[in-house]
Amino acid sequence: MQSDAKILERIGESLKALRRSQNLTQQKLSERCRVHRKFISMVERGQHNVSVLTLCQIIHALGKDFTTFICDLEKELQS
Amino acid sequence: MQSDAKILERIGESLKALRRSQNLTQQKLSERCRVHRKFISMVERGQHNVSVLTLCQIIHALGKDFTTFICDLEKELQS
Repeated sequence: MQSDAKILERIGESLKALRRSQNLTQQKLSERCRVHRKFISMVERGQHNVSVLTLCQIIHALGKDFTTFICDLEKELQS
Repeated sequence: MQSDAKILERIGESLKALRRSQNLTQQKLSERCRVHRKFISMVERGQHNVSVLTLCQIIHALGKDFTTFICDLEKELQS
């Protein structure tokens, strides 16, 4: 069983990797999803206990669904 | 792409089904995960924009991992 704090870190790392793969800055992503850049930075570092809806908003701005994103993470954790 | 409010509803329905499959009342689950019963009720009805860590806490009390839980939900949504 994953520890709770770890899951925020893994979500953050995965968000950051996805953002970078699209050559987006935190600022650009922030403008797309209307979530403050500093907030995105904290989520990417696993330092904010983000709500499901805000996470959805960020993930959607990166062109993915929440469940698909988490499911891809699950596959990474298993591999 | 799922709408954002819908995802909270789907998570809630899935939590409720998992809790019921274990013959747990909201009260019992509340004692296990130290999340208030009324809060669990709101999450189950998709009426609260729950944070990732609180969601983890509830899911762990039901014996699952956060990512496995969401991934199972993804499979249901696809089927």
